[in-house]
Amino acid sequence: MDIKQYMKEVGQRARKASRAMAKADTAAKNQALLFIATAIRREADALRAANQLDLEAARAGGLAPALLDRLTLSDKAIATMAEGLEQIVALPDPIGEISNMKYRPTGIQVGQMRVPLGVIGIIYEARPNVTVDAAGLCIKSGNATILRGGSEAIHCNQALAKLVNEGLAAAGLPADAVQIVATTDRAAVGELITMPQYVDVIVPRGGKGLIERLMREATVPMIKHLDGICHVYIDDKADLKKALDICFNAKCHRYGTCNTMETLLVARSVAAAVLPELAKLYATKEVELRGDDEARAILQGYPHLASATEEDWSTEYLAAILSVKIVGSLDEAIDHINTYSSQHTDAIVTEDYTRAMRFLREVDSASVMINASTRFADGFEYGLGAEIGISNDKLHARGPVGLDGLTSLKYVVFGHGEVRV
Amino acid sequence: MDIKQYMKEVGQRARKASRAMAKADTAAKNQALLFIATAIRREADALRAANQLDLEAARAGGLAPALLDRLTLSDKAIATMAEGLEQIVALPDPIGEISNMKYRPTGIQVGQMRVPLGVIGIIYEARPNVTVDAAGLCIKSGNATILRGGSEAIHCNQALAKLVNEGLAAAGLPADAVQIVATTDRAAVGELITMPQYVDVIVPRGGKGLIERLMREATVPMIKHLDGICHVYIDDKADLKKALDICFNAKCHRYGTCNTMETLLVARSVAAAVLPELAKLYATKEVELRGDDEARAILQGYPHLASATEEDWSTEYLAAILSVKIVGSLDEAIDHINTYSSQHTDAIVTEDYTRAMRFLREVDSASVMINASTRFADGFEYGLGAEIGISNDKLHARGPVGLDGLTSLKYVVFGHGEVRV
Repeated sequence: MDIKQYMKEVGQRARKASRAMAKADTAAKNQALLFIATAIRREADALRAANQLDLEAARAGGLAPALLDRLTLSDKAIATMAEGLEQIVALPDPIGEISNMKYRPTGIQVGQMRVPLGVIGIIYEARPNVTVDAAGLCIKSGNATILRGGSEAIHCNQALAKLVNEGLAAAGLPADAVQIVATTDRAAVGELITMPQYVDVIVPRGGKGLIERLMREATVPMIKHLDGICHVYIDDKADLKKALDICFNAKCHRYGTCNTMETLLVARSVAAAVLPELAKLYATKEVELRGDDEARAILQGYPHLASATEEDWSTEYLAAILSVKIVGSLDEAIDHINTYSSQHTDAIVTEDYTRAMRFLREVDSASVMINASTRFADGFEYGLGAEIGISNDKLHARGPVGLDGLTSLKYVVFGHGEVRV
Repeated sequence: MDIKQYMKEVGQRARKASRAMAKADTAAKNQALLFIATAIRREADALRAANQLDLEAARAGGLAPALLDRLTLSDKAIATMAEGLEQIVALPDPIGEISNMKYRPTGIQVGQMRVPLGVIGIIYEARPNVTVDAAGLCIKSGNATILRGGSEAIHCNQALAKLVNEGLAAAGLPADAVQIVATTDRAAVGELITMPQYVDVIVPRGGKGLIERLMREATVPMIKHLDGICHVYIDDKADLKKALDICFNAKCHRYGTCNTMETLLVARSVAAAVLPELAKLYATKEVELRGDDEARAILQGYPHLASATEEDWSTEYLAAILSVKIVGSLDEAIDHINTYSSQHTDAIVTEDYTRAMRFLREVDSASVMINASTRFADGFEYGLGAEIGISNDKLHARGPVGLDGLTSLKYVVFGHGEVRV
């Protein structure tokens, strides 16, 4: 197989399909999504059989148990995929919306129309549910998509893609609007991320290693985040009860998510009051606390205590580990965050209005929170209805990215024969 | 001079200054802008003297007359720069605006706050006015900026930069918020576009050659347009009078601008009626018409008639030349535009509602117009108040880019101690 030629053809088909998708009406897009949801439920046995082939190959290849778990298409996962599509049907169609329409002194009316981006490339690891979620979001937003899932899930992904293509065709939409890359050759990814003439944006979903590799080589723009080094700052005007609740939740609700707190900053004047109470909570989960000198002095006797090194301030543990630093002021907290944060999500706990407002304005992260757990940084929690990914970049989309992040605004002008003088 | 080290230091100073600019209040930013406007008027003689040095060097170096003209800082240019700054003062400050604030079922309130991008790199040719325009827009939008103007204007740009830095300092803002690259060595540009750790976005302002070169090498994202291959389609339901006015204006109002029409598409059934009338207008300006076979048959006898080749459909003439094609339907017109347009600005002339709406939705360009001259595609005409550039890309900003294009939206969450369950 000539990968370069194959990917070029995939790209050309996607570009062509994107034109038809851009003008597809809401009813057709919803009809396709409902068809796919029904088909997923009806073909559950066949999907599990395809998944079984992937699982057998993965076991034979010695895939780690955690990854095998992600690869497994359970009954619940199948039901969730179908429900996810129905939720996307229920979202308003973003395409065609015209906003800010106003008359100009010349007589023309100027506004902006929301339009699809065109072709979205999605690169993800061995999680079959991403195939359906991503396809659903791209269909609803009038885009064509090229999906490149982890090679371990190839059988399952192709079985799902077949249902997606049937759904598109049943609704009178081009089946090529959703294409699964049919080869597990890694060179296909290299092509996908370097063909801006066919692909408008890449959304990588995976670990830091995958995304760093893509960043080095991609010439197509990406909507991505590398990691989540999230902070909570307990101000000396914090409500102690709120601080305890938020800091326990932000660290212990789930360890492996990008919006989990990795560093706790505590105002010096309240550290002796708040840290021992917090340590009691963390002790129940055996959370390792890596403190600076001052924090360790206060936490003496905590059974899982360690020293924080410079490296800890920029480490995403994704584990039951938390770095802890004592700071002298709000300014010091903001400086630390703007230096070490991955600009994902950072929170302050305070009852002081002026400090809360300063934190909100001055912390340069995609999500900035007052008196809430960082775990809320999520498309569903924010009310986007669905999430294609999270962006730590500032251009185009920042924070959780929903349907709107897969669209652009073009200017539209309504005239009556006006010319420029 | 070690260019790499120098640019690194420029970048570090800009990054540091950007933090102070992000929290600067509206009054301080406006104060700086007004100080600079006043200083420009007061120091007009000194600015002309600096410009004189540039002009002498340029003449000695044999710069083309058109470029010498652009380089010249006339009394009018000086007045316009000062007025431009006062217009920016009058614009609302985009920074800090919070929108879409709403309660979620969990109790948190979620919205979005408009924030600066950070550091903007501007690369432009020998036009001193861009120095002041760009600095003004970046200051108002709370960004730091690194300006790299054409080497021919270095004396004038440094004299302007001195006034800008004084204005920033007088308002209590960091002078480093606007830095002019102090070397004319081209290697400085290579550094500027490959230091994403210090520069968030590059706005290149210049010809296609400059921008193509930057695109090949840049790792910092760009807000840019390569060229403007703009179309007008005269539908067979067009009002003839409007068609004549619009097509004459779109081609002849100014030849060298990116929103000038380069290709005219005419519906077959009205071509014999409309083209000879249009030719009478174009004849007054000696516009060369490059027609396809059918167009040439109708235009027989026009004194400046030539054959259009395949290459003409994707050529931006920037001159008194127009390619003309006869099409059989709206679909053919849209197909031609979506194939050959540079996605800058395209217009339809029609009285037919359904066709107008189809054109509006299906033409995939930054500006799509009904019954108006393509020359309206401009930040001032659209009411943006000012324009940092035009984007033909779909990500982040599309079409004329004003202050908002130099900003991003971060999510803000107001909580009351909520945790995720």
